[in-house]
Amino acid sequence: MSKSYKIAVLGASGYTGSELVRLLLRHSGLEIAALSADSKAGKPMAEVFPQFAGVDLPELKKIDAIDLAEIDGVFCALPHGTTQEVISQTLAKKPNLKIVDLSADFRLADLDAYAEWYGHPHKAPELQAEAVYGLVEIHREKIRTARLVANPGCYTTTAELPVIALLQAGAIDPEEIVIDAKTGMTGAGRAAKEGMLFSEVSEGIHAYGVGKHRHMAELDQEFSEAAGKPVRPSFTPHLAPMNRGIYATTYVRGTGGTDAERMHGILADRYADEPFVTVLPFGQVPQSRHVRGSNMVQIGVVADRRPGRAIVISTLDNLVKGASGQAVQNMNLVLGLPETMGLEQVALFP
Amino acid sequence: MSKSYKIAVLGASGYTGSELVRLLLRHSGLEIAALSADSKAGKPMAEVFPQFAGVDLPELKKIDAIDLAEIDGVFCALPHGTTQEVISQTLAKKPNLKIVDLSADFRLADLDAYAEWYGHPHKAPELQAEAVYGLVEIHREKIRTARLVANPGCYTTTAELPVIALLQAGAIDPEEIVIDAKTGMTGAGRAAKEGMLFSEVSEGIHAYGVGKHRHMAELDQEFSEAAGKPVRPSFTPHLAPMNRGIYATTYVRGTGGTDAERMHGILADRYADEPFVTVLPFGQVPQSRHVRGSNMVQIGVVADRRPGRAIVISTLDNLVKGASGQAVQNMNLVLGLPETMGLEQVALFP
Amino acid sequence: MSKSYKIAVLGASGYTGSELVRLLLRHSGLEIAALSADSKAGKPMAEVFPQFAGVDLPELKKIDAIDLAEIDGVFCALPHGTTQEVISQTLAKKPNLKIVDLSADFRLADLDAYAEWYGHPHKAPELQAEAVYGLVEIHREKIRTARLVANPGCYTTTAELPVIALLQAGAIDPEEIVIDAKTGMTGAGRAAKEGMLFSEVSEGIHAYGVGKHRHMAELDQEFSEAAGKPVRPSFTPHLAPMNRGIYATTYVRGTGGTDAERMHGILADRYADEPFVTVLPFGQVPQSRHVRGSNMVQIGVVADRRPGRAIVISTLDNLVKGASGQAVQNMNLVLGLPETMGLEQVALFP
Amino acid sequence: MSKSYKIAVLGASGYTGSELVRLLLRHSGLEIAALSADSKAGKPMAEVFPQFAGVDLPELKKIDAIDLAEIDGVFCALPHGTTQEVISQTLAKKPNLKIVDLSADFRLADLDAYAEWYGHPHKAPELQAEAVYGLVEIHREKIRTARLVANPGCYTTTAELPVIALLQAGAIDPEEIVIDAKTGMTGAGRAAKEGMLFSEVSEGIHAYGVGKHRHMAELDQEFSEAAGKPVRPSFTPHLAPMNRGIYATTYVRGTGGTDAERMHGILADRYADEPFVTVLPFGQVPQSRHVRGSNMVQIGVVADRRPGRAIVISTLDNLVKGASGQAVQNMNLVLGLPETMGLEQVALFP
Repeated sequence: MSKSYKIAVLGASGYTGSELVRLLLRHSGLEIAALSADSKAGKPMAEVFPQFAGVDLPELKKIDAIDLAEIDGVFCALPHGTTQEVISQTLAKKPNLKIVDLSADFRLADLDAYAEWYGHPHKAPELQAEAVYGLVEIHREKIRTARLVANPGCYTTTAELPVIALLQAGAIDPEEIVIDAKTGMTGAGRAAKEGMLFSEVSEGIHAYGVGKHRHMAELDQEFSEAAGKPVRPSFTPHLAPMNRGIYATTYVRGTGGTDAERMHGILADRYADEPFVTVLPFGQVPQSRHVRGSNMVQIGVVADRRPGRAIVISTLDNLVKGASGQAVQNMNLVLGLPETMGLEQVALFP
Repeated sequence: MSKSYKIAVLGASGYTGSELVRLLLRHSGLEIAALSADSKAGKPMAEVFPQFAGVDLPELKKIDAIDLAEIDGVFCALPHGTTQEVISQTLAKKPNLKIVDLSADFRLADLDAYAEWYGHPHKAPELQAEAVYGLVEIHREKIRTARLVANPGCYTTTAELPVIALLQAGAIDPEEIVIDAKTGMTGAGRAAKEGMLFSEVSEGIHAYGVGKHRHMAELDQEFSEAAGKPVRPSFTPHLAPMNRGIYATTYVRGTGGTDAERMHGILADRYADEPFVTVLPFGQVPQSRHVRGSNMVQIGVVADRRPGRAIVISTLDNLVKGASGQAVQNMNLVLGLPETMGLEQVALFP
Repeated sequence: MSKSYKIAVLGASGYTGSELVRLLLRHSGLEIAALSADSKAGKPMAEVFPQFAGVDLPELKKIDAIDLAEIDGVFCALPHGTTQEVISQTLAKKPNLKIVDLSADFRLADLDAYAEWYGHPHKAPELQAEAVYGLVEIHREKIRTARLVANPGCYTTTAELPVIALLQAGAIDPEEIVIDAKTGMTGAGRAAKEGMLFSEVSEGIHAYGVGKHRHMAELDQEFSEAAGKPVRPSFTPHLAPMNRGIYATTYVRGTGGTDAERMHGILADRYADEPFVTVLPFGQVPQSRHVRGSNMVQIGVVADRRPGRAIVISTLDNLVKGASGQAVQNMNLVLGLPETMGLEQVALFP
Repeated sequence: MSKSYKIAVLGASGYTGSELVRLLLRHSGLEIAALSADSKAGKPMAEVFPQFAGVDLPELKKIDAIDLAEIDGVFCALPHGTTQEVISQTLAKKPNLKIVDLSADFRLADLDAYAEWYGHPHKAPELQAEAVYGLVEIHREKIRTARLVANPGCYTTTAELPVIALLQAGAIDPEEIVIDAKTGMTGAGRAAKEGMLFSEVSEGIHAYGVGKHRHMAELDQEFSEAAGKPVRPSFTPHLAPMNRGIYATTYVRGTGGTDAERMHGILADRYADEPFVTVLPFGQVPQSRHVRGSNMVQIGVVADRRPGRAIVISTLDNLVKGASGQAVQNMNLVLGLPETMGLEQVALFP
């Protein structure tokens, strides 16, 4: 079977880029037609990521060298900052492209919020107006018809899936949401920094960005929409000595007598038919390693011993459902392919 | 200089036992006179823990084979359950011994609470009455004159040091304490279980004992005493893929206008002269790896963006300040030695 | 498309069992019809391996409870020792089954060698006579017509692929082969033993089984066949703190003026058309992480500075090409399916 | 007790620098008087290495700002290349200093060998002439009277201790030495490079510098001196996913009927009285984790099944006996202090 659509991956030399390539190689509807990596243009992908040795892939090139005429969909896995301009220029050249952007550049609908959190005005406000926030299980129908999808952050996807469902059901107090999140190292990308060295990360754990992580802006936006009023959760990210995985432990308080078991019921119902969300039996706790490499989210709900409170735990692989996997899911939607195509892979454990 | 006191370590074949030996070997006031390990009696310590190859140590023997006549102090590092009987019998034989018990057997002053959390009646209630909870920085004076010190749990020491100080100062709401804690694997000991295998622990993180971990009983006891009324915090332990370290991220709400910076001031003042507690500058976050192998606690306080709330982070090495190091600190106190003796070691990082 | 053949996995509660399930779930020609796990019979697979939560799989049952009538092929992932009897009985019940055995029970053609290395006589000598050693790239044609395939060991596959090719070419001295191999923890399985605990394995490396590892018997058999005379290499396995991966560094001496570059040419030619073997450019060194989760072998050849000698490095994932992946490759062959079916997955890195 | 000698550490912001500080803080004869770190001059040490928070240490300053008048001994932990000039200038200012240099700049007595391996002429040939190679157990007496000690490399110390002893005894064939070595990440220092990121190092193993690692030059020098003729061993370093530890598996062939057990005897005799070398019982294999954080070397000897050959395994902590610990041992010697002073610490395991 010849694959249906031709795809370009911009920023293929980063981890989300290589993860897109991994997933697309087993996707029967999307074909990798072009790979860009400005600083490594001219090199074979296998030189940058040796796991692709022996795999037939296009050479890395500069973005401008990509012939858009043959491209149907673009994954944009570029660093924050340049993305708004690159996407503007790309859509100017070929307006009927479908683009899934993995950066944070189009996630915030409120231009003022963007400017506040990112320290500069938005460079493509007209595109922002049409961009759709690509949290599939929440915004699926809007995504189907989008031209530009802003793929959500890894932390935010993890926390939003359970919490939005509970907020929409009016089951929890929006003033009392505490999200204690843990991530692996790949979420920080491949740029060499002292704090990311093996010797600085292994055999220890620590919080970072406490009180000021940019993913808060996404949480605020989506939680507020779900609650119908402004919500500002507490959110603390931690770095654990592992490659992959986000693990969010969320402390919530039920409203109107809603207890933990009822919350579990709400989530189990809400996600019963979702192919990539598993709500574990009440009281059971997920482990991040059991979703490693897959597009799955596992959610557990446990009663807190403080009456009326619950501990909601959600986990996913930050490079898959937290980035490249959800991006493929979004691309499947905008191109009209089956949503699960290319994402059927079970977790690699152990 | 000949060392002042002769010491027996009961349960030297576990990790807290070997850690006691490590610390005692560089202690100038305590001398290892006897090591017990029932199932490994007759073996040299270096066969059970090869890091002691070449070190002059007494052979492992059964507890009954220890000649108490020559012993001044006993560290009891036995599993929960047998400890109450062993200590009763030991003190019956030699009433003027000093004992620091690393198990949970004498930590709960309330016999009913003990029975509830441990599922059976206390086997040495009269000894419980005299046991002192060995959280040194909080109960130092009572410890000095104790015969039997119940060394606190690793999680509890980590969370209690900052939270008790804040509760005693009336600075935080006792109803709104959420402790999200992360530990390394050594806290679970050396008994072989499937869930503790390398392949089951590496490259992932997960919560466990959610809503029911026994260290809650200690937190309740100490927090309630500090607050002057019953306190039941939310507490969720997680297992991170590392050997050592407890990392507690505690979410609190100030009372009467107390903000995060004020909380930081309270902690900085309270622990200014403590040799084993470092309160970092306001807004700075500790890392568990920076206390690895040392008896230090590092505490950081950061403002939550929700007004009036703070995130208090504390970390220590579960085998040192969370177990064997604090046990040595307690033994120093009860024997009248300088409190820091044998505990001067800086963290091993990286 | 309905899948062609129905498959039973015996021993699905171990790591090679769960890995078979992972691979078979994306195999378009093999369907999982039955899963056995004696001690966990009656449980859903997702209870034993939570990564399968939400996946439709048959319940675990006892071997005897499997209806062989509906089965075409059997993967036997049982521990050494019981396998010979189980396979004898199974084939007695249904002689036209195809069986790929992942244990060591049928790998040694010489019954005396078996008795010597395993300490007891072979229990199914007549079956041994028909068993084919399933190192696909070396014995492909014999495997196609086999009923019982003995899937090779993980260490042996890693070392044999380069060394057999060099021996068959007469390029290296059979008397001077030193194999220094490193493995991850999953090779030891899931049975709980002290030496496999996270705290005993992380943050360190060590050799084991030095001078007496059973995989030597396989190496001897295959190397001797390739060389046309008895060969007994030196082989030292090490345990590295990682889940997956075998990494064999093999020191060889060229014969008749064969230098390292010539050896590289021999290997590059020999494996040019093999879908699962990549010979890297001369002088380039593979990394075990770049084959993680895939069925790939990467081989590198570097000149030693001692004239005429070379360092040949080969690596694979012990659970895939070193076990379950090669088992699927063998099953594809014996059932007449395309050899690469279900094994197209690229490595999961990072 | 006031400490006897005042010490400067040049290059305190690297891992060997911080390790020196860790060791010196518990050294009763050496006092830290000055710490240099050019790029971090003016900062407190605790800002660069948070494990020193709360410890009283001099501020980091530029080398030129150190008042040499008060200094008795200098540890030079600077990167290769600048060291020759820095030490020349320092000794010009104060000729009666004692210097232990942890870089590779003064390890090769042969200036041509230096130029060949390091790609440029030696910048302080006259100092090279007086420098003593600081492998204590081999060159102790020469070190005692040295002014400038070249602290050996981590790989080289590990391999040289057993192999030199065997060569000196004429027990092994110098033509047939194969050293397969594994190291942890800290050996590469703290400078940020892509290949040293957690995500690139964890969960995998690989060889590097194959056939051309600079430590070969040291091995050649010391092995040749021991054998009395030119020796060029095969040496292959690997990077294992751990912080600390060198593990050398050395394959040797006995001469004149010397078997493995005899080699063991030679090593056991040779190192019987050495405080930092433990030769394990014949056939027993060390683990790198059992020397972590200590100045110990553990050596094991196992018979190869190839007659007349043995596998000699040695391990140490690359930051301690492989760098800063051995440097302290050398400084103790040149200053006339007890050799073991400040190095009594047992390994931190687990």
